[in-house]
Amino acid sequence: MISSAAIAFECLSPCVNDGAFPVKRELGDPVEVEADIFHHGHGILAAALLHRPAATRRWREVPMRELGNDRWAAEFPLESLGLHEFALAAWVDAFASWRRAAERKQAAGQDLSSDLLEGAALAAAIAARASGDDAALLRAAARSADAAALLAAETAAAAARWPDPKARQRSERNWTVRCERPRARFGSWYEMFPRSQGTVPGRSATFAECEARLPEIAALGFDVVYLPPIHPIGRTKRKGRNNSLVAAPGDPGSPYAIGSEQGGHDAVEPGLGTLADFDRFVAACHALQMEVALDFAINCSPDHPWVREHPEWFFHRPDGTIKYAENPPKRYEDIYPLDLEAPASESLWRELLRVLVFWAQHGVRIFRVDNPHTKPFPLWSWLLDQVWALYPDVIFLSEAFTRPKPMKRLAKLGFSQSYTYFTWRNSKQELADYLAELALGPSRQYFRPNFFVNTPDILPEGLQRGGRPAFLSRMVLAATLSPSWGMYNGFELCENRSLPSSEEYADSEKYEFKVWDWNRPGNIKDAIARVNQIRRQHPALQRIEGLRFLRADNPQMLLYARFSRDLADVLVVGVNLDPFAVQHGPIEIPGPDLGLGDSFTVEDLLGAPRGLWRGQHHYLRLDPADSPAVIFHLRPA
Amino acid sequence: MISSAAIAFECLSPCVNDGAFPVKRELGDPVEVEADIFHHGHGILAAALLHRPAATRRWREVPMRELGNDRWAAEFPLESLGLHEFALAAWVDAFASWRRAAERKQAAGQDLSSDLLEGAALAAAIAARASGDDAALLRAAARSADAAALLAAETAAAAARWPDPKARQRSERNWTVRCERPRARFGSWYEMFPRSQGTVPGRSATFAECEARLPEIAALGFDVVYLPPIHPIGRTKRKGRNNSLVAAPGDPGSPYAIGSEQGGHDAVEPGLGTLADFDRFVAACHALQMEVALDFAINCSPDHPWVREHPEWFFHRPDGTIKYAENPPKRYEDIYPLDLEAPASESLWRELLRVLVFWAQHGVRIFRVDNPHTKPFPLWSWLLDQVWALYPDVIFLSEAFTRPKPMKRLAKLGFSQSYTYFTWRNSKQELADYLAELALGPSRQYFRPNFFVNTPDILPEGLQRGGRPAFLSRMVLAATLSPSWGMYNGFELCENRSLPSSEEYADSEKYEFKVWDWNRPGNIKDAIARVNQIRRQHPALQRIEGLRFLRADNPQMLLYARFSRDLADVLVVGVNLDPFAVQHGPIEIPGPDLGLGDSFTVEDLLGAPRGLWRGQHHYLRLDPADSPAVIFHLRPA
Repeated sequence: MISSAAIAFECLSPCVNDGAFPVKRELGDPVEVEADIFHHGHGILAAALLHRPAATRRWREVPMRELGNDRWAAEFPLESLGLHEFALAAWVDAFASWRRAAERKQAAGQDLSSDLLEGAALAAAIAARASGDDAALLRAAARSADAAALLAAETAAAAARWPDPKARQRSERNWTVRCERPRARFGSWYEMFPRSQGTVPGRSATFAECEARLPEIAALGFDVVYLPPIHPIGRTKRKGRNNSLVAAPGDPGSPYAIGSEQGGHDAVEPGLGTLADFDRFVAACHALQMEVALDFAINCSPDHPWVREHPEWFFHRPDGTIKYAENPPKRYEDIYPLDLEAPASESLWRELLRVLVFWAQHGVRIFRVDNPHTKPFPLWSWLLDQVWALYPDVIFLSEAFTRPKPMKRLAKLGFSQSYTYFTWRNSKQELADYLAELALGPSRQYFRPNFFVNTPDILPEGLQRGGRPAFLSRMVLAATLSPSWGMYNGFELCENRSLPSSEEYADSEKYEFKVWDWNRPGNIKDAIARVNQIRRQHPALQRIEGLRFLRADNPQMLLYARFSRDLADVLVVGVNLDPFAVQHGPIEIPGPDLGLGDSFTVEDLLGAPRGLWRGQHHYLRLDPADSPAVIFHLRPA
Repeated sequence: MISSAAIAFECLSPCVNDGAFPVKRELGDPVEVEADIFHHGHGILAAALLHRPAATRRWREVPMRELGNDRWAAEFPLESLGLHEFALAAWVDAFASWRRAAERKQAAGQDLSSDLLEGAALAAAIAARASGDDAALLRAAARSADAAALLAAETAAAAARWPDPKARQRSERNWTVRCERPRARFGSWYEMFPRSQGTVPGRSATFAECEARLPEIAALGFDVVYLPPIHPIGRTKRKGRNNSLVAAPGDPGSPYAIGSEQGGHDAVEPGLGTLADFDRFVAACHALQMEVALDFAINCSPDHPWVREHPEWFFHRPDGTIKYAENPPKRYEDIYPLDLEAPASESLWRELLRVLVFWAQHGVRIFRVDNPHTKPFPLWSWLLDQVWALYPDVIFLSEAFTRPKPMKRLAKLGFSQSYTYFTWRNSKQELADYLAELALGPSRQYFRPNFFVNTPDILPEGLQRGGRPAFLSRMVLAATLSPSWGMYNGFELCENRSLPSSEEYADSEKYEFKVWDWNRPGNIKDAIARVNQIRRQHPALQRIEGLRFLRADNPQMLLYARFSRDLADVLVVGVNLDPFAVQHGPIEIPGPDLGLGDSFTVEDLLGAPRGLWRGQHHYLRLDPADSPAVIFHLRPA
């Protein structure tokens, strides 16, 4: 059990749970690997980083460099999507070790005659496995047995190119990295409730009406248009307005009660149109450089075709009837959960795979997965791998509003992105602590956050009370703290009417048809468009790393720097967390730490240039009535 | 590769390199295990910790308790020396999960009739695998199908005792802990140079003369008497006084140049006596409750029997002669290193094992291993395991004065204790940083420090310059910061004469016979005896954990609390790091944090009672001429 390796490989980074799960990177990123590599004694080590796409056989190899204190480093590029493997190898370079000792003796004026015979023997042995010029050079040096030839730098370089394969030791194991496309990390999401995108009250909007809104959404700078379930909705126990137990005639019901006589997870709700209409909608998104994300919710209405065709996939009562969803004392009688651990579930798992592949065939490459934490972990390992085998560019967003450890486990198992606790992190300390965890903690290797400012289920209390300034500041926070952020439609209108003592929207379109005035007064569309534009222009905002909270004395003012790895792009964001009052106070901007020197020009990307600032100490005033936030672009003077 | 387990086991502690190496504990210690254990969904989990001595087949099992946030904990006792294994198991408790949901529905006044049928079926299934009273109780509850019977606490308790073996999931792997005797952690070491323990100048002292000194050493409170090599010393290229290249007639040579015509690693230097004399010395130590530690140095003089009998074990020059040790430009012509990686080394490894077993047969249970970092790592994994298979109570101290990572690797591979960088950590910040690493860092799980204040090779500069106050303060630091500490004879006499610009002793007994006056004026034997007595009386000083540095404004004053885990024993140690001047200043003692409340009595165990102290803020004055250190024993008022 205890490694008996003569060369130690320890503390490799990056890795997740000591390599039990892959780390995540995006196409084009280098994977920067470090490890402790050492050996007993005084011999000179050489080391290499091995890597390959997991599906291939041939390892590629890059030399590692020693950083000091037995730490070694190298990088390899990711040139294809999917899983890649990497490993380590090291060996004692006998010729280099001999050379160092001989040089020291030479410098001390000691007799080298025996050492030169040793060096010549080593050079001859290397020459025997070398070829070309190296072999000739080494053979000549060996024949000469001469200090000048044997100790020459070229001789050492030639020898290093032909290491002794018998001396080579490989790490006992491989590590893995999953490469996804950059959208897995960086993107702005717009959640569109399709039924409410039209202008005619009392009926569902159609995909064609949804399509009509796309230019506006593209102009707001969004990358992803995410649709809640678009499938036929059950009639049995359908919910009425404001989640009431009895639906009135004409009430459309919750789109999460999936399935009716008109079809299930691979069908389209007739009120929205046909599958062909959906295909046109997808094409229209693509034409505007946007992608469609579909909801993947593993539950059924009592009218879903699966209930009839596969009753064995559901939970049953002792009397043989199918159980509806319950979280006592709550009941969800319009929804039948599926028994994903039942003996019969293998065919269900395959059916779920078929559904995902069906939509992938219709151009969908992003799935937002509903409540994955209530489904077995092994389902996700299997399902994601199966989809990726066919469509390696698919992105999965986990809607796991659950405890921290299951939330993170889903990310480890493969989910590309995850919803977060952002909507419940409001105070300065809460935000700083949470971002420190996400941006600096070990989870940054595998957990990609997507900061939604609201969802159809979550109208945070701060937005309910704070109004427009709160919408602005939460939007700036989400869009500048997390490389992926999202909003659910209505946010841009500062919609903040809730049910009493609840995070639920009043008169939610989850249960009724609505018509919105997408340009109603008080909207913050200009600000959203501007912030999304800034996000696209500034690499500093496209990674979770490169974050440092800065000193702002006022406890209602949050100040942070966002910077690219090379410090070529540096922003400082200041947000007034109090939507009700002007806040102001001294702030500190450590120019030298940010690669800016002591003087730098400041431009508020949400406002006006501020001119040349000198030194670290400044003063900031943020008026929620005007703009509760600044995004300073800092450049060396 | 990705775990497809339905129940996640993550972040187990304690572990070393994610379980690649055993953690270390001592006999009688509980092993306190924690892990993240969780599952999708809402089912109630139960978990167990499995454990067994590694050599046995049957696992024992203790239930784990949930600490919150998906963290679980349990302990198991260590009742035998050697390697123990542990693992985790967990399962969804279907009956408990059913019961919680039914109770919630009952509390909400909902209809339970279907639920009770379900519960009855579950109870009946459990009854079928149960026996005795539990089976009867469960059967009765199932037959009744009655809410009162099925929801009763006794029914739940009975059900929990018979978990479904099919629902049980075990961790895929085991973890390990190596159990050693408490001396591996806690002990005071006296390094005795045997040749210098007598009273007759110009010849070696004998084991009998060494024996005569033992009552004095026992009275000083030492637990271990450690002897540098006691074997015959080579004559070829023997070193003279002060490490000179040519020995004068009668010079004894370095005891590390092991082996002569009188024998090798299993023989005794005739000047010291016979093997029988050594056996008597060992017995005399045991009679005084002390143990003997022997040096294990894998090198030979040119006169060692192995050179003749096994030339293949050595390094050879191209001309066939054996190479002496070199670290260019230095040469050690009196020593031949052994080639432990040579094809012929298997028989050498076995011979080394024979040597260790030989001395174990003569009552030695502690080996101090010379320079283990210059020998192959796999040798140590093998050798220690082989010795422990025969003598599980053997303790190995690693003399690895090398870079941090190889030093720690040797501890991971099995060395019970290790020499440290303590002698080179002198300033307040250096000591605080180093102790934070040892006492609080991950290495505390496997790296047991032994703080030597000096060695035959290391007379630290601070002792050379600082004189008696420096000897006192370094002794108090070593003995109160590390549960194991040691000194090399002469320290108690404040011997501080060095070779010029060197950490080497002047006129070192490594190369000559000496006669010491063990009671010479200025000695610090009383203080050593007192500190070793305090160490035995205070559990707070017997573990590396339980350390907190306290505020002392004066940069030359180091102040720290040492406390037992239950806070029943609390000490505060203050040390003046400046041997030349009185230092004084405000100090802070956070009584409430140390379980003492706001008032506590203070007794200086090196001086006098100080009375009742109130509050956190006090003032301390330390006069090196008097005592440069205080050891306060704090008790609640």
